[in-house]
Amino acid sequence: MSDDGYSLSHWEVLRRDSHADCRVFSVLRKTCRHPVRKREGEFFVIQSPAWVNVIALTPEQKLILVRQYRFGTEGISLEIPGGMIDGGESPVAAAVRELREETGYVGRDAREIGVVHPNPAIQENSCHLVLVEDVRMEAELDWDGNEELETVIADVDETFALARAGGITHSLVIDAFFFFLPHWERLKSVKRM
Amino acid sequence: MSDDGYSLSHWEVLRRDSHADCRVFSVLRKTCRHPVRKREGEFFVIQSPAWVNVIALTPEQKLILVRQYRFGTEGISLEIPGGMIDGGESPVAAAVRELREETGYVGRDAREIGVVHPNPAIQENSCHLVLVEDVRMEAELDWDGNEELETVIADVDETFALARAGGITHSLVIDAFFFFLPHWERLKSVKRM
Repeated sequence: MSDDGYSLSHWEVLRRDSHADCRVFSVLRKTCRHPVRKREGEFFVIQSPAWVNVIALTPEQKLILVRQYRFGTEGISLEIPGGMIDGGESPVAAAVRELREETGYVGRDAREIGVVHPNPAIQENSCHLVLVEDVRMEAELDWDGNEELETVIADVDETFALARAGGITHSLVIDAFFFFLPHWERLKSVKRM
Repeated sequence: MSDDGYSLSHWEVLRRDSHADCRVFSVLRKTCRHPVRKREGEFFVIQSPAWVNVIALTPEQKLILVRQYRFGTEGISLEIPGGMIDGGESPVAAAVRELREETGYVGRDAREIGVVHPNPAIQENSCHLVLVEDVRMEAELDWDGNEELETVIADVDETFALARAGGITHSLVIDAFFFFLPHWERLKSVKRM
């Protein structure tokens, strides 16, 4: 796998303004009091819908990765597919939907393998980690207007090594790898890989 | 390890207000244009100093955990020590300082084992993962006014199992475990554990 992302565009930053309301998240100021110390304080917390990301394995036990431009770090990031859980949607349904929309891959046996809090100190939401097996390219891509992704089919152990070498840095993707590791060890022994 | 945290106080939420400037972080609105599509968009990004967290091992190869109240999730969270990197401070120096301030433990051979981006989509900053060995309780605690922590000495493999069972959910702590795993396997083989 190359880690440059030359085929994707880097967006050009035209202007930076301080701001408050934030579309994909909002900021809440909580006024709190310590019940014993009686000390009061204001604490700022980011609210957003729950997130999901997905470990998707092909019948050959390869992993589906996506490469995309990220506005936070202003660079191309290699990740697993994922996104926001819609209102009323289950984490597993959201994972299946995001995988299909972002990559066109559809699989079976989707199940949650872990749940994390992106940052308990300043964020309320959770991120659900989902495993889907036997994924095949069966659907049309369905990107939103600002999306532009490149799908990469990768060897799992090489992906772990790449992550440990600094080639994958998204914290929630690394979390999915941690939860997937024991599943992967079992899959490898079953398939005698 | 118990996972209740009964000896720590839950803060009482007095009021919630929408807000903008956020002390430990700030929100930036980026106006961006796609160089090929020519499409423009506004994207909200959270700015904060870089963070650090630390895997601290005692001479007996036990792990130092901390339990504390978190304002984002409004609950007690079991984590590894960590915090913000001060201006001009190296990640390793910050890790050593946070470990000492939060737990009183001081060690040797501190080194970075990984770097992640908490969320490349909406955050600019990075989180550095540091390993410190041979830590001993040698310093006075030095909490800030809102801090209140409980130190827990834990078996490493049991901690991994606890995390996989949902007892540790902080995404950046799970990241540290992922990067620490190969170091731990080597330490176990060297020490014939």
